[in-house]
Amino acid sequence: MTETRVQVFKTARRLLTGYGASAQLAAEAEDLMMKRPLIVTDKGVLGSGVIEPILERFKHDFADSTSLYSDISAEPETHVVEDCCHSFTANKCDGIIAIGGGSAMDTAKAVAVYIGDDRKLEALFGEDQVRTRETPLICLPTTAGTGSEVTNIAILSDVNAQLKKGIVSNQLLPDVAIVAPELTVSCPPAVTAASGVDALVHAVESYLSNFSTELTRPLSLRAMTMINKSLLHAYENPKDMKAREQMATASLMAGLAFGNAGVGAVHALAYPLGGRFHLSHGVSNAVMFTEVMRWNYSYCRSLFLDIAYALGAPQTLIEEEAGDFVVERLTQLCEQVNIPKTLREFDIPKEVIPELAESAHGVTRLLRNNPRELSVEDIAAIYTAVY
Amino acid sequence: MTETRVQVFKTARRLLTGYGASAQLAAEAEDLMMKRPLIVTDKGVLGSGVIEPILERFKHDFADSTSLYSDISAEPETHVVEDCCHSFTANKCDGIIAIGGGSAMDTAKAVAVYIGDDRKLEALFGEDQVRTRETPLICLPTTAGTGSEVTNIAILSDVNAQLKKGIVSNQLLPDVAIVAPELTVSCPPAVTAASGVDALVHAVESYLSNFSTELTRPLSLRAMTMINKSLLHAYENPKDMKAREQMATASLMAGLAFGNAGVGAVHALAYPLGGRFHLSHGVSNAVMFTEVMRWNYSYCRSLFLDIAYALGAPQTLIEEEAGDFVVERLTQLCEQVNIPKTLREFDIPKEVIPELAESAHGVTRLLRNNPRELSVEDIAAIYTAVY
Ligand SMILES: [Fe+2]
Ligand SMILES: [Fe+2]
Repeated sequence: MTETRVQVFKTARRLLTGYGASAQLAAEAEDLMMKRPLIVTDKGVLGSGVIEPILERFKHDFADSTSLYSDISAEPETHVVEDCCHSFTANKCDGIIAIGGGSAMDTAKAVAVYIGDDRKLEALFGEDQVRTRETPLICLPTTAGTGSEVTNIAILSDVNAQLKKGIVSNQLLPDVAIVAPELTVSCPPAVTAASGVDALVHAVESYLSNFSTELTRPLSLRAMTMINKSLLHAYENPKDMKAREQMATASLMAGLAFGNAGVGAVHALAYPLGGRFHLSHGVSNAVMFTEVMRWNYSYCRSLFLDIAYALGAPQTLIEEEAGDFVVERLTQLCEQVNIPKTLREFDIPKEVIPELAESAHGVTRLLRNNPRELSVEDIAAIYTAVY
Repeated sequence: MTETRVQVFKTARRLLTGYGASAQLAAEAEDLMMKRPLIVTDKGVLGSGVIEPILERFKHDFADSTSLYSDISAEPETHVVEDCCHSFTANKCDGIIAIGGGSAMDTAKAVAVYIGDDRKLEALFGEDQVRTRETPLICLPTTAGTGSEVTNIAILSDVNAQLKKGIVSNQLLPDVAIVAPELTVSCPPAVTAASGVDALVHAVESYLSNFSTELTRPLSLRAMTMINKSLLHAYENPKDMKAREQMATASLMAGLAFGNAGVGAVHALAYPLGGRFHLSHGVSNAVMFTEVMRWNYSYCRSLFLDIAYALGAPQTLIEEEAGDFVVERLTQLCEQVNIPKTLREFDIPKEVIPELAESAHGVTRLLRNNPRELSVEDIAAIYTAVY
């Protein structure tokens, strides 16, 4: 009998894309029977001017029954979840709407599954510790990158333990994701660049993943093509709505792909940079990206040929040339959007490389997805190459 | 400002694929809190030998609390839905599991939204007339074709009115779709052929649709490639599990695509053949397929080039050659799996062509998706060409 494994593709039940999608929020909230929604956002978004039209509309549709929580930091801490829960309860809310980057969405996702659970928040950390989610949840990303609107994970910082902790549960998948390019226009170029490259990493790593599927692979490839064509435009001309739309939709597609196929060594090696040196998720992935690809490509040459074509290689390109083509194109793109190239630029001392390598090597949850197995020495060599 | 429309991608929250996926049914039913599931199937499936292992496992996991309803005909009539509802209520069921072709799944979907609604069944027909669905629903297709496991429509026959009626509502989307190739091995070659070509029509028509999206297009194209490569194998060697798996997954992917982008003129012209002459859905689509493509291709040449590549055309093929390549390849594939080529073979009198054309021209819900607008005369000419 053919030996195959069972594959699960899971996502939000409804995904709205395209310019103007944010105007559908009130209707979607009503469909989910929300009467008193809590909007979770961050101060950056609040001051950006993109959220005001939504709040205006909400005031109209939901009278005075909308509450707002905007105390979200760049790396949301566990106590923020507690605090946001109190706000939800105090305002007698019955639904959660996240409008923001990964931090606001991850906080909102955590709150949605923590409400009504009589255990301590810590009990939810890890895989499948969540019991249920009764509170309807809608996510609207304001950056094109994290894909958090369609993933089953929420990452929080535990300040005391000096590390990041994740809640992993399918209950975290929102009911509706609204991926509206108009919410990303005020995203500053540096954030556009880092989160856009992060989305490209999602597309590439999910395609290379040992757990990619027939459903994820076409989404990964198409997302690569879209990002390859539009990231520079969105970076150079923030109001280019067509480019913003392509980036927003591509980020969603890459999110669908990696939410089911996983990501690999780039994310594993980025992890300790965020945890210890507080590089943002996007930047830490972007800086590790091309070097990890250089290590991967002789281990999955035909996949790299597909990636090369997706990144615009001529059809005459052959398998032996694919790895170089991909690495060159990724390097070029990262340079064009001014992604830092070395760890040195972040004042990371060279002596910590062995510790970083140990730490990254422990992220087996991600390393097992990577097409090439990496030893601690391999990982240290990669960090050294980008130092 | 860029003018774009908002696009919605909706689906079941969980999609299980791959050999062995049917063994996950009990776990998925439990996750949905089903304690007394009603299994809806048809007599063909019941006698095929594929469902018995599932029922055995269910007896084990759900003790004596599983009920079975298998009175499903090829074209399910409205009274079957009533009857199945009575069975659900009489057995105090709390969840529905459909295991079968489009008929069993459509019946189960209708029952799931009709239970607990105090109106007559007729009130649910049309678009968005369903109020809610409280009953959890899992669909397991036993043919690779309809894609009903991920679409928001249920088609029923109204015997009195001599026509087919549809319930269209997002509430019809199942909670979980389990697309297990092992459930399709007993599908006889003629059904494998017709439903497989139907799936290919879904992939092609959704790709050509005026309402295709960034999310549907890569799924459509990949589904074409998979069906093109594996349909003949599944037809000639029904136990070829690799081919069955590719067909099952491709059918799901085509279902995701057309469930969101729609289908076009092939389906519109097939409609009256089913309604009046009782050709099966698969056969009526298959017989109209290539001729409609011949009519479409000069209206969307670059899309046909993409389709040609997906169907294995060499990269040297140019746009002007794409239409012919596609029509030839589709004709060849239909011949290889012995799809009837003419309406004549079904004892359809030539005189009814004007009536068929009138009827098909009225299916505006589908014709508006088609890349070429078709007049009644165009449609009559197409029927005449395949007579
Ligand atoms: Fe990431
Ligand atoms: Fe069909």
